[in-house]
Formats: sequence, structure tokens, C-alpha cells
Amino acid sequence: MDHCILKAKLVDINTGGNLVVFLNSEDAQKYNIEDSDRLMMSWKKAGGVVVEVHLSEDFIPQGKIGLSSEIQDKLHIKNGEEIKLRVIDVPESVRAIARQLNGVDLDYQQIESIIKDIVNYRLDDVMVAFYLAGAFWDGADYDKIYNITKAMVETGHVFEFKGEVVDKHSTGGLSGNRITPLIVSIVASLGIKFPKTSSRAVTSPAGTADTMEVLMPVTFDNKGIKEIVDQAGACIVWGAKDIAPSDDRIIKVAHQLPTEPTNKMITSIMAKKVAMDANYLVIDVPVNSTAKVKTLDQAREIKSVFEYLGKRFGIKVKVLPYESKDPVGQGIGPALEARDVLRVIQRKKDRPLDLEEKAVFFSGQLLELVGRAESGEGTELAQKQLDSGAAEEKLREIIKVQGGDPKIDSEEIKIGQEVYEVKAEKDGHVKLINDSHLDWLARILGAPSIKEAGLYLYKGAGDEVKKGEVLFALYANNKRRLKATRDSLDDNPIYYVS
Amino acid sequence: MDHCILKAKLVDINTGGNLVVFLNSEDAQKYNIEDSDRLMMSWKKAGGVVVEVHLSEDFIPQGKIGLSSEIQDKLHIKNGEEIKLRVIDVPESVRAIARQLNGVDLDYQQIESIIKDIVNYRLDDVMVAFYLAGAFWDGADYDKIYNITKAMVETGHVFEFKGEVVDKHSTGGLSGNRITPLIVSIVASLGIKFPKTSSRAVTSPAGTADTMEVLMPVTFDNKGIKEIVDQAGACIVWGAKDIAPSDDRIIKVAHQLPTEPTNKMITSIMAKKVAMDANYLVIDVPVNSTAKVKTLDQAREIKSVFEYLGKRFGIKVKVLPYESKDPVGQGIGPALEARDVLRVIQRKKDRPLDLEEKAVFFSGQLLELVGRAESGEGTELAQKQLDSGAAEEKLREIIKVQGGDPKIDSEEIKIGQEVYEVKAEKDGHVKLINDSHLDWLARILGAPSIKEAGLYLYKGAGDEVKKGEVLFALYANNKRRLKATRDSLDDNPIYYVS
Repeated sequence: MDHCILKAKLVDINTGGNLVVFLNSEDAQKYNIEDSDRLMMSWKKAGGVVVEVHLSEDFIPQGKIGLSSEIQDKLHIKNGEEIKLRVIDVPESVRAIARQLNGVDLDYQQIESIIKDIVNYRLDDVMVAFYLAGAFWDGADYDKIYNITKAMVETGHVFEFKGEVVDKHSTGGLSGNRITPLIVSIVASLGIKFPKTSSRAVTSPAGTADTMEVLMPVTFDNKGIKEIVDQAGACIVWGAKDIAPSDDRIIKVAHQLPTEPTNKMITSIMAKKVAMDANYLVIDVPVNSTAKVKTLDQAREIKSVFEYLGKRFGIKVKVLPYESKDPVGQGIGPALEARDVLRVIQRKKDRPLDLEEKAVFFSGQLLELVGRAESGEGTELAQKQLDSGAAEEKLREIIKVQGGDPKIDSEEIKIGQEVYEVKAEKDGHVKLINDSHLDWLARILGAPSIKEAGLYLYKGAGDEVKKGEVLFALYANNKRRLKATRDSLDDNPIYYVS
Repeated sequence: MDHCILKAKLVDINTGGNLVVFLNSEDAQKYNIEDSDRLMMSWKKAGGVVVEVHLSEDFIPQGKIGLSSEIQDKLHIKNGEEIKLRVIDVPESVRAIARQLNGVDLDYQQIESIIKDIVNYRLDDVMVAFYLAGAFWDGADYDKIYNITKAMVETGHVFEFKGEVVDKHSTGGLSGNRITPLIVSIVASLGIKFPKTSSRAVTSPAGTADTMEVLMPVTFDNKGIKEIVDQAGACIVWGAKDIAPSDDRIIKVAHQLPTEPTNKMITSIMAKKVAMDANYLVIDVPVNSTAKVKTLDQAREIKSVFEYLGKRFGIKVKVLPYESKDPVGQGIGPALEARDVLRVIQRKKDRPLDLEEKAVFFSGQLLELVGRAESGEGTELAQKQLDSGAAEEKLREIIKVQGGDPKIDSEEIKIGQEVYEVKAEKDGHVKLINDSHLDWLARILGAPSIKEAGLYLYKGAGDEVKKGEVLFALYANNKRRLKATRDSLDDNPIYYVS
């Protein structure tokens, strides 16, 4: 075929991943198209996305082209609109991907052509895989990582805030660890801009966005985010979709492998920070065997890449690696973690002190980095903001501006009604907490999509425990879920008492 | 989700590529499944293929799982059968792919786990891309190429023929060049076994399988192929689907890049030859800028890899690289190429002598390799078989055994009724033939799916031509196709006369 023109028919199928269209088998034969062919699709308003073809004998009538839900959402094509399909000219980005695989260094324009074509779906998932393989596994040099990050920023929306803009990020690997809302509240309470975008959970029981959604809406467009930050001096929102937009597709492909190259992770993080206009940045790097960063050597390498990128982008960066695998805080799951956050900020007696301590430490680091505190005095200032109620006031302001209930109390947060407590079978000390079992149990309970589901850890590693004392509790919103999780307890122990 | 059980509902959609299933959105939410998630699907009879999920609100009712046509074909699942979906444990093959990307050398078992999981759809196209990137672009060593080839052979059907078994292959890059049926006929006429599997065109106007299908059926299962070879001593069939079956999926992914690594190409070729039980092999390597092999240096590297693999597999290999870009034979397109073949074998006056000469040369090389002719005397023996009619007799025997008309005459072959002759506009010499324009024009005319479509070249490069003489003719089966091609002539010149 040279090209063919068909009429759009919207169909109720979500394909995710590649953009998929559905054709009638007769049309396909007429135009020499086969199932899973990649073709260039254009239409009145705009032109040029790559689509993958599925065929059907009856589902789609001749002369029509079925468009999946994503295509309708992303491209705003109407029923009956004329759609043109044609053979794909090999785009420059594909040539660049092949060149890179052959070991040729790409210049910025070539890298940008790849990232741009990932964003606008001119490259499919297979091409994203070839791109990633060539970009990150062949010992990427620093300059290349800078160019990739820059291209990821410039193919999306870039915010412009005035003055000092701070940000923090964790490479992940500890359960709980919901320090972000606390750090934002503490630091922003001193008038420092803190436009925080957070992610939802991918494999963990809750991301910061999942947790904060218990307290307030977190989904806003770029304009909304700008307005919130202009008003409250800070926000805690779900990662704006136009911020380094290539990352969504890249993550989807990269996560099919059991490990991701650290440089790939760094570009993802840094691109979002640059696009958020941060000029001070603290990176929390927990190091343990189940985290993304597994050794201190790897952490040191990461540190030096972040510092290099910081210099190139004009961002003061502080990277803080440390070995730990203990959960931080006591709640696991969106609602239970949100309750921990409020308990700390409200200075409740039963607040998790490890969470507070860590949040204060990182806030102090940021304050020192910005120059609001002398070296060694940041922690004290951060603690003061928390103790004085200034941080609480700031969090309630953010909740209000984002449309939540600013008066909410930690104990009003709804948690699962179905509870099961696991008790110690003997006296002793809590020995080890298995993070991945913890995560798995929380997922069976329904977290993160069921906000109220999760676990509450009464005991931490090293704590003394007496026979019959509660070690931890499961929370679910129905009996079936609770039972399924109880049945999984034996295979997924999280504490050992000895 | 841990797992869920749904009832099979067969749906009329062909997805190609990955195996796709369709779920109701409510079910998906209930089980925490998202569109484009990869899950492990198992059912009564067997267990374990990786499927990609598409979601729908109405297309699929709750409790059902829609299975695309490929899944029905490949897995023989019945309507209403119970289907279990569960989270994928990361298979060993995925770990091996990641390890390979990290520069670790894989052992044979690991390579085999990858190839096996490609064959049985436990790895999707993205994983195939990651595998290819790690396997072939990092300067693969010979031993690794051997292991990959071996795994490709052993994950499929392996034929066992007795005695001397010969084969030939072309890496491609010349238009026409339909020497294979002639070589098979000549060599097999001396009682040497020649079980030839051929491919269909991917980007060219005809593959050997497309061309021979004009004369006889070419699609057979393994048992059928064995019977044909046992009876006729040779066959010319479309590449048996169980022969190195990973290659189909690998080619689909690799062909999305503009160039393929030569080692990837060599494994594809060699795996099929080993599986066909060949013990003598001649490789035709045309070298030119539009062919797969672009330089003599590259050809020399290929030669040495083939010779290495030949030693490991116990196959005597002769690789023959030469620079050329001129079409061989005069017909382009299945029917016109089949006519060329018959004209040569029938010793017709207007037979293309360049095609004959090349076929005789390669036949001679094979005969010398097998030891049926002294060095330097193979060509003469091959020519004798052609001149004596022995080769014709053998071809007609093969046509008969494969179910075609053994009495067919070259001039009975049906070619396109719509003809347009392109004439020289001045006296001079034919200067250059642009292969890719030639291919493109043949594709617009409808080749290879329309057998009768194509071009016939009256003049070759270097020939003298007088104003008004016919240079070449276009053949189509309808006026619309012919007109579209005529309209493309100016943009796609194939001869220059000067």
C-alpha cells in the first residue's frame, strides 16, 4: 500500500502501551496490511503518530478504523473523522537509535529526536527498549546523561517560579518513609518555595501521591499547580503529566526488566526536578539489597552523577546515601501513612518518632543547602518549625488550597474496619523485618488502590517484645481480603522474634 | 491480585506480535490489573504463556476473558474454558536478558532459556528487543553466536535426512536473482539431497517461496516436507514453521531497525540450515550499498563467522562474496521470475543468460564442495546437467510431487494483462539501475501478493540502446495499479540513458 483513508470508529477498548487501531481484515488484505504492522496515522487536525494494527473480520466494518480509548483520549479524534494510514518512513529517531546501538555517540539533536518521538508516539515500545539498551547499558558518559536529561526536560512543560525553589527526592527502598509531606511543610513554613510533584506506587503499597490523596486532591494540570504554589508557596501533587513526559513510557518499558540502570533512574529524577525549576535539591538514597540502590559503591557513583548534573543545570545538589532497611514510620498503606504524617505534624503522643527524626534531619539539610541555616544548625531550625506549629499551619494551608479539609485530625482518617492483630508467640527481641513480604501483604490487603488497607507496625527491629504483645496489625475493608492476607502470613513472615 | 479465574470468550480480533487478552474494566479494577499489564495465563491443558491485557467496559462481560484469534489458533482454547491469570514471576530468561545487558556472558542454558521463552511467548516483543540489543550489538564473540544458533535449532524441529545433504542461501540485495530453483534442480539431478526451504518477500517484490508458488504449492508441514524429499530427493518449500521457530518473532522485532547486525543475520540463516540437516552449504553474498552486506570488509567478517559455525556444526561451508548491484534475470515479481526460471530450465531462446550463468556457477561450487566434481570442474558438470535436460526433469519431478502441473511451459505462466512499455528517449548506453526504485515500483504494481504483477527488464546495465527501443515494461492486473505506477515513474527512475 501507498496509503489508505478510513473513517474513524471509536471502540471501547483500552490497550495501554502502544497506540492500537483495529481494521477490517478485508481492508487489510486490500491495502497489504498485516496484523501488528506499524503504520503512520494522520488526520485533519494533526499528523503523525505510529499505530499498531489489530485485525478483525466482524468487529470493525470495512472502510472504518477502530480507535482505542487511549487514542480517543490522547488525540481527540471524533467518530467519522477521516483517518489516513501510510507506510512509515523510517524517522530520523530510528536511525539515531540504530546508530547508538552501533556504538556511535549521538549529539543533542539526535537524542532530542528520540525523546520527542517517544513523547508523540512515533516510536513504539520495542523502539523504546532499543533506545534504552543503547543509552544506558553501554557505560553512558556524563555528557550523554546530561543531554538525555535536557531532552527529557525540553520535550515537556517547564515551570518558572521566582527565587529559591527547593525539592527533594528519594530513590526508594524503605517501607513507609513518608517524610516528604513533613519536609515540604517544615521548609515551606520558612517562606521557601517547594513545588513538590510525587509519584504513585508502582510496586510499593503507597507512593506519596497515593498517601496525600487521603487528605486532599493531588491531580492538577500545570496551570493549577502554578496557582497552588503561587498561593501556598508549596504543593504536594501527583507528578504533572507534561513534566518530562517521555518518562512515563520509558518507565513502562524499563520496568519489565528486574533492575534498571542507575543512570536511567537519575535522568528520570533529574529531568523532573529541572522541569519544576528547582535550584536546591536533596536526594535521599537508602541503600539495601531490596532497594534500587544496593551498595554504597553504587550510591557513591550515583552521588557523583547527580552532582555533575547539578552543576550543568545550575542546581545545588546534596546526595545523602545511608544503609538501612527498616521501615520508617509505623503505618504501611495510604491511609495509615497519612495518619502517621498528621500525628507527627500535630505533635500527637503516639506519633512515630523515627519518621519525625528523619523528616527533621532532611529538612535541616535542605535549609543548610539553601543557606537559611548555618552548617550543623539546620536540624534545630527544622525542629523549631515543627514544634512551634508553623509546619502544621503550612500543611493545613496546602490542604486547603488543594481542596481538602484543612481541619482534619489524624484520628479522623478512615482506616480499614476489618482488623487482625498478629501477636508475639514468645518473649524476645524483634529480629528482622522483611520489606518485600511487608509490601506483598499490603498489596494483598488492597493497597494502594484501597486507601484504607495496609499494616500498622507496633514493633520495630530490635524492640523487646513479650509473649502475647501485638507485633503488627492488618487492616482491610472486607473479610475476604483479610482472610486472603491471613492465609499468606505463614509464607510471608515479616518479623522474627528470638 | 494474587490470581483470578475467568471464562474464555473467543473474540474476532487478530493482534499479531504479543499475545493479547481482553478483560472487563470492572474485573480489572477488582483484581488490580491495568491495561497493558503482562500476566501469566494458564488453563486446563497447559500452563504458562505471557499475555498483554487490553481493557473494555462493554466489549467483554464481567467474569470473561476475551481471547484473540492468535491465541485461539496457537493454544486451542475453547469457549467457556476456565482461564487463570496470575502475576508473572520474573522468569529466569528475563534475568538472563538483564544480565547480558550488564555485560555478563551467558552460558548455553541461559541462552536456551531465552530462546525457548521467545518461542513459547513467555517473553514479549519488548523483551525480544532487550535480548537482541544485548546479544548482537556488544561485539558478540564466536562462541556466543554458536550457542545462540544451537539454541535456535534445538527449540524447534530438526530434520534427519541420510547421506549428503546440501543447501544454499543468499544474504540478498539483488533484484530478481532467482537462482535457487535452478541450483536445486541441477544439483539434485545428480542424486544429491537438497531439501530447500525458502522465504517469502519481506521488503522485496518476491521471495523464492512467492515465485515457486506460481508453479506449485509451497506450504507443507514437517511430515510433508520429509515425504517430498524422500520421494523427489529435493523440495522447494516455504520455510517450515517449526524450523528454528524463534526466528519469526526475532525478525519481526529486529526489522523495526533500519539495519540488522550481521551476526543476528548469520544465526538466522545458520539455524535453519542446521535444522534442515545440511552438511554442505554455499552462501551467496552480494555486496552493495543497498544490500544487507554493504562492504567487502563486512563480507570477509561474515565469511569467517560462517566458516567458524560450519566447523562447530560439522557443515562444509563455502561463502562467496562479490560486488554487484545489477538485477539477475529479466523478470521482477513472482510470475515474471518464475517464467525466467522455466525459460532457463527449458533452454528457451529468450532465456536470461545472466541468470543461467550465475545458477550454473553456484551449482558448480556446490558440486565441488560435495566432491562430485574436481576443483574447477563443477561449472562444466552443472552446465551439462542443464543442457542434457536432467535438471528440467528434476524440477518437473519436484513440481509433480509438490502438487503442481509438471507439464507447464514457461509461456503458459499468467502475467499481468495491463502492460506499459517504457522506451528510450535517445540513443546511448543504459547507465545505472536503481534497485530500490525497481523494488518500489514492483510493490506499487502489487508484487508479491499479486503474483502476475511486476516488471520485465529488456535492457541490462551497459547495454546499447536506440531511441524508441523498449527499456522495460510494467505488468499489472488492473488499470488503477498500472496508472499509479506510471505516475510514480518520474520520481523513481530505474535506468539512465546517456
